[in-house]
Amino acid sequence: MVRLKDVAQAAGVSASTVSRALSNPELISEATRARVLAAADRLGYRHHPAARALVTGRTGLLAFSVPTLANPFFAPIIAGAQEAAEEAGYELIVAVTDSSPERETALFDRLADRVDGFAAAGPRSPASQLARFARSLPLVTLNRRVRGVDSVIIDTPDGVGRLGTHLAGLGHRKIAYLGGPTGSWLDPRRLRRLREAVPDCAILPLGPFPPEFEAGARTVETVLDAGCTAVIAYNSTLLLGLLHRLTMLGLSTPEDLSLACADDLSAAGLAMPDVTALHVPAAEAGRRTVEHVLSLVASESRSAAHQLLPVELLTRASTGRPRELPMSGG
Amino acid sequence: MVRLKDVAQAAGVSASTVSRALSNPELISEATRARVLAAADRLGYRHHPAARALVTGRTGLLAFSVPTLANPFFAPIIAGAQEAAEEAGYELIVAVTDSSPERETALFDRLADRVDGFAAAGPRSPASQLARFARSLPLVTLNRRVRGVDSVIIDTPDGVGRLGTHLAGLGHRKIAYLGGPTGSWLDPRRLRRLREAVPDCAILPLGPFPPEFEAGARTVETVLDAGCTAVIAYNSTLLLGLLHRLTMLGLSTPEDLSLACADDLSAAGLAMPDVTALHVPAAEAGRRTVEHVLSLVASESRSAAHQLLPVELLTRASTGRPRELPMSGG
Repeated sequence: MVRLKDVAQAAGVSASTVSRALSNPELISEATRARVLAAADRLGYRHHPAARALVTGRTGLLAFSVPTLANPFFAPIIAGAQEAAEEAGYELIVAVTDSSPERETALFDRLADRVDGFAAAGPRSPASQLARFARSLPLVTLNRRVRGVDSVIIDTPDGVGRLGTHLAGLGHRKIAYLGGPTGSWLDPRRLRRLREAVPDCAILPLGPFPPEFEAGARTVETVLDAGCTAVIAYNSTLLLGLLHRLTMLGLSTPEDLSLACADDLSAAGLAMPDVTALHVPAAEAGRRTVEHVLSLVASESRSAAHQLLPVELLTRASTGRPRELPMSGG
Repeated sequence: MVRLKDVAQAAGVSASTVSRALSNPELISEATRARVLAAADRLGYRHHPAARALVTGRTGLLAFSVPTLANPFFAPIIAGAQEAAEEAGYELIVAVTDSSPERETALFDRLADRVDGFAAAGPRSPASQLARFARSLPLVTLNRRVRGVDSVIIDTPDGVGRLGTHLAGLGHRKIAYLGGPTGSWLDPRRLRRLREAVPDCAILPLGPFPPEFEAGARTVETVLDAGCTAVIAYNSTLLLGLLHRLTMLGLSTPEDLSLACADDLSAAGLAMPDVTALHVPAAEAGRRTVEHVLSLVASESRSAAHQLLPVELLTRASTGRPRELPMSGG
């Protein structure tokens, strides 16, 4: 690895002069500067980004934290985020927090000096902590809103409300909601909007569940025993497990159970053309979040702005009228 | 954004002195240095990483490229890679190449000056190009071996051979192989090892397939019409689709079709306890790749080393003896 002092030796100048040649060229003679740059080039000394960072105060790096990559929901978000960063000449540092507030704080402290801005998808830290982060560095949260922190929210609560209205319209009166992981900011909001949307339906909240096939498969008996005729799952992996177990039991969708999903993982290869689902603009959300961070990096203004991205309801074959219940005698 | 010149003004010194205070403190007086650092701290000037990079020639950043994040296989790889980078005091830049050699080259050119080393999972660039990259920067490829480039290979070819032996031992004589995406370096090697392992079996290679549920679902009729009694899928998402469609048709596993999978996506929430699969040490592979890159960063030696990670065969309920064929008259 070529170091500053190697360049200095090769150019016959002091290390301090090399540093000036790279970061404050106006302070030294053109001839000296040319000699230093020629030596740096010859030795393959990689100085530009660091030198530029010293001069401009910018690093050209953005951080994007996600609670996990195991939920395929985050793959298209990161792909969209990377695209937007790249277009602006930035590189993206992706960090996985394992849904731990402690890891988030440690990550932020470690990266604050290294990046120009920070995007945090579904952060788990206390609001006061996030607000403190936002005062020290351009920060945008995705899918969590905190006072004083810019945010982008994918409006799945509205979408889940619409799924409820769709199911109630088909005649369902008892609906199970398979809820998201512990600590999700959005999940209680989805459940609340569902209840508001269908005040005449009984809602059975189950969970919290990890976004896993097995967890979905294990819910089938509980849902049926409780007399639910429809299910809304917060995640596709969970829904896939449920659907698989249902089919194994010889039951049919939507005849025995209507199924709907609060995401539509086409980008993760899990899209099922027959399942009623919310189309979630995940790549677009990643892109908007990065563009929002970059707008904070470019300006000094700190008035927190919030963006809400609508989701689309895709009504398909997995939801239908519930089976006629046997008339109760009396 | 606080700049170098702001610190200079606040400390009452020249920009050049600030630069020296930060990157070559031995060149200036202790009193001046203290004044500069106090001003930098007061203004919140973020200088350390860039200053350190100028002095040491290191950036503290590693790049990790993946062809896609849509294949859940890469999530645990990146999680393991991040963990290893973090332990060594490095940050990881994750880049998605969309399986495009052009994007890989552009990415490499863009990042070569910004990172200390590069890990490339399943790169699609020509071997000569990768060898050229490796001469200019510490490079380790994951799941591709190129002369002159260090590599880590997860030995799924060996595992697929063992899956074949397992199926042949149960009595299967016609096995379908659902192959991976175009451009995969490993996939033809898996198929070759399968053929070598079971010379008495007819192998029906199908594909290339994207790692998608839908693609798997669409293979069922082809596999059954061809008279195959067993299937090996290169990926879990594909296998899930196949299994689902099979169940929908009222068919059973393993009675009607034995199913085996060349990965085991427990980290992606897609693990199915009943499916015969290869346990692939994905997180371990990500960790080893980063540790290998770091060993190249630390040393000047350039003798390409190759690591082979074994996979484990998990024999479960989805594979069994084929149904007895009706005796042909004669």
